[in-house]
Amino acid sequence: MNKQFVAVNYITCQQDYQERFEQLFSSRAHAIDTFPGFRDMHVLKPQQADDNYLVVSYWDSEAHFTAWTKSAAFLEGHKRAFANLAQYKAEGKEVPMKSSFKTYQILCN
Amino acid sequence: MNKQFVAVNYITCQQDYQERFEQLFSSRAHAIDTFPGFRDMHVLKPQQADDNYLVVSYWDSEAHFTAWTKSAAFLEGHKRAFANLAQYKAEGKEVPMKSSFKTYQILCN
Repeated sequence: MNKQFVAVNYITCQQDYQERFEQLFSSRAHAIDTFPGFRDMHVLKPQQADDNYLVVSYWDSEAHFTAWTKSAAFLEGHKRAFANLAQYKAEGKEVPMKSSFKTYQILCN
Repeated sequence: MNKQFVAVNYITCQQDYQERFEQLFSSRAHAIDTFPGFRDMHVLKPQQADDNYLVVSYWDSEAHFTAWTKSAAFLEGHKRAFANLAQYKAEGKEVPMKSSFKTYQILCN
């Protein structure tokens, strides 16, 4: 298996949104699974209460990952979450989760 | 494959120690590979210059990971790195890398 590139999405999630956040991932659309260059992903729940969730995805290359983030499938895969967040904004509430990507090369296995 | 528990070691590494650090991992002893409950590991090199390396390891359970960190095999697997760090200390130099573990459950794949 050729897993060269890794994207880690660091997600902070307000406590009262965590159940919804976990439910969205547990029932995810699997839109990513057949995307070219995608290899594997894991959603990691922190054992420390105030810590980040990590979404770790493995790709053949950075170009494959970038193509995914710009794809219609990406929008489709996130549409329930995006709708949730838009609703919070529309109601003038603080957005309940924030995420930021960091990217890595696999040094060794 | 039953991968339930994940340990992430966040490693900060001084710039002038990175080559040695990478060389140690690239020629690692593979002491961990046959340890009970061990499933997989990846050493991730950040694409952002000032960021952490991540050592991500997958285990059947937290108990298996804890057993590894207390094992003779763990000491054997880290002995070159530990000798390096001891030498820095003996010479009164700042230790060139620091690490801290965070632990996670796999929420979904």
